[in-house]
Amino acid sequence: LTSKLPDVGTSIFSVMSQLAQETGAINLAQGFPDYDPPLPLLEALARHVLTPGHQQYAPMPGLPRLREAISQKTTRLYGHTPDPATEVTVTSGATEALYGVLAAVVQPGDEVLILEPAYDLYGPAVRLQGGVPVYVPLALPDFRPDWDRVAAALTPRTRLVLINSPHNPTGAVLTPADLDTLAGLLRDTDTLLLSDEVYEHMVFDGAAHHSVTSHPELRERAFVLSSFGKTYHATGWKVGYCLAPPTLTAELRRVHQFLTFSVSTPTQHALADVLPDSALYDALPAFYQQKRDLFRELLAPTAFRLLPVPGGYFQVADFSAVAPGLGDVDFARQLTREAGVAVVPLSAFYHNGQDQHLVRFCFAKQEATLRAAATRLQA
Amino acid sequence: LTSKLPDVGTSIFSVMSQLAQETGAINLAQGFPDYDPPLPLLEALARHVLTPGHQQYAPMPGLPRLREAISQKTTRLYGHTPDPATEVTVTSGATEALYGVLAAVVQPGDEVLILEPAYDLYGPAVRLQGGVPVYVPLALPDFRPDWDRVAAALTPRTRLVLINSPHNPTGAVLTPADLDTLAGLLRDTDTLLLSDEVYEHMVFDGAAHHSVTSHPELRERAFVLSSFGKTYHATGWKVGYCLAPPTLTAELRRVHQFLTFSVSTPTQHALADVLPDSALYDALPAFYQQKRDLFRELLAPTAFRLLPVPGGYFQVADFSAVAPGLGDVDFARQLTREAGVAVVPLSAFYHNGQDQHLVRFCFAKQEATLRAAATRLQA
Ligand SMILES: CSCCC(=O)C(=O)O
Ligand SMILES: CSCCC(=O)C(=O)O
Repeated sequence: LTSKLPDVGTSIFSVMSQLAQETGAINLAQGFPDYDPPLPLLEALARHVLTPGHQQYAPMPGLPRLREAISQKTTRLYGHTPDPATEVTVTSGATEALYGVLAAVVQPGDEVLILEPAYDLYGPAVRLQGGVPVYVPLALPDFRPDWDRVAAALTPRTRLVLINSPHNPTGAVLTPADLDTLAGLLRDTDTLLLSDEVYEHMVFDGAAHHSVTSHPELRERAFVLSSFGKTYHATGWKVGYCLAPPTLTAELRRVHQFLTFSVSTPTQHALADVLPDSALYDALPAFYQQKRDLFRELLAPTAFRLLPVPGGYFQVADFSAVAPGLGDVDFARQLTREAGVAVVPLSAFYHNGQDQHLVRFCFAKQEATLRAAATRLQA
Repeated sequence: LTSKLPDVGTSIFSVMSQLAQETGAINLAQGFPDYDPPLPLLEALARHVLTPGHQQYAPMPGLPRLREAISQKTTRLYGHTPDPATEVTVTSGATEALYGVLAAVVQPGDEVLILEPAYDLYGPAVRLQGGVPVYVPLALPDFRPDWDRVAAALTPRTRLVLINSPHNPTGAVLTPADLDTLAGLLRDTDTLLLSDEVYEHMVFDGAAHHSVTSHPELRERAFVLSSFGKTYHATGWKVGYCLAPPTLTAELRRVHQFLTFSVSTPTQHALADVLPDSALYDALPAFYQQKRDLFRELLAPTAFRLLPVPGGYFQVADFSAVAPGLGDVDFARQLTREAGVAVVPLSAFYHNGQDQHLVRFCFAKQEATLRAAATRLQA
């Protein structure tokens, strides 16, 4: 058997989570919170699990009432109302949406433009469709896109551009000017856009999240992804969604019906119950900014050089002064084993393993966890 | 945008379920029960949803305790103990397992042998990998495989043979002699096997389910799929699993980690709680045989000619004497609209829409539902 992904090992998130478990390290590697979803959401799910008739297949594109609630949330936040019937699809996490979009639109030989560092599934998922990932670097100091380099990488074979804001792992956020520039580059092309916005509620310092959904020109060619796992501290529930115009949604659903067919019915009911309560997600920017600020304050006395974090779940830090000359993978393992704090080396987000002496900490943790980790890191 | 599946519309199961809902018809089309999962399972899920720490990502291959329970169940039923660490993978329903196996092993140009009629996703999911579905007919009167035709269809490019027992839609079941014959055909080839066994607990008249897992020669080249949705009347929970030797499991997981990454954590905990209670699944053959027998008895006075049902969820019937000359799609629509009973036309299970004047009824319904449907069908 010839592997289709011979160079792909177990995802770095699994590897580091397992190492953390084996060594008793505090897990700041994989991106998940160590607190629970809001109680009303938990109670809603427990209630729907005990509701007769709510345990069989949901409709393939998602429960109508959840799609309706998603549409209303989108209107409220981004001033655009996707049609629940033809423009909203509920998926098994944003991961399934991402894979599904790629499977639906990428033909063998198509190029897909990926800004790097990038979430580890983008490249392999493109290759599984016979597509060709074309990597454009996001560079230090701030990892913002260099649109001239993007323009230079676009070709008539570029089927899709993949963007992610707030960005994993760097926290960079796109501005309205970025979206306008991108719209200009894509104008008069057939290139589609996939916008991974799973950290949409984690933008700091008074800035706003600028969704592709709120950009009339871009959204006409875009799939926009969100994650209830990230929004509701329920990464283990695996529910996300994709917004896209009707023709694009139709192609995604053609694949989604064969990929997973549908998503947990009681879980969709529970999410539909709480989504109208905007207070739950309106509180998130302040909630996460406090965690970011605390974590940075706690690490300030250490030799880690902290990069700015305009958004997202993660703090990227340069460890050159902590362990001069050490590779980032070795450093991450050593930090896990010896300091008892698991992190992700940034080279895991590069197709060629580029090492810039950077590691990623997840700060979506309880204050006590962040303090305990900092104490270990200071030692 | 050129569609990758231009000929694939909305799945027949969605179409008929929607038509049933619009017209108020009794839905015997899509394969799901109209009763709930066992109460201990519902209570277990409600409990785990309210258990702190059970709401974040499960390990990518599945919760260890659920994989352990699956291994023990497999030992008990099929006399073989898959290693939970390297041979068991929990997936978002058997659907994700199926798609994942195809994405993992089918390379462009590879042939995949499909016995037809076949579940509607097999062919399109093969084509999305650039594979070539090769169809071998299962023929009336009993829809059992003609192994000479299978042998004739095998070529050096056959990457995978797809089998399904008990069979959807026909209910046919494979015997140990079938498995031996197939093993002989595949001996000395590199062809893999995908065995869809989601109806494993629905084999009737004292016969046993003969799993590929219990066949030492075949299982060395096989992915074997099962569905907790079908076993526990919880089709809306979307949890299934795949058993395969370590090298094959490794390839599936390479794809699974990018397809959905992991499956609902609280749901996996609940399934791990009840799976050791073998009484729950041991009761299923008698439970479903009673439904089959009742439904056949109720339809006996009608002009439908009922085909034998050795296993599964479904009754196939010839309607030639009910509506001579009518196509099966038209008949299914007419039956839904006029008689108020939704069914699936068997042509939906053929890539070329072959019409044999057959429709499929799902008898996984409460006695009252089956009686009400029969009353309408008799009228
Ligand atoms: C699906 S595991 C990875 C979780 C995550 O978003 C991350 O750690 O970047
Ligand atoms: C995933 S919807 C189809 C359910 C089913 O197994 C069937 O009706 O054949």
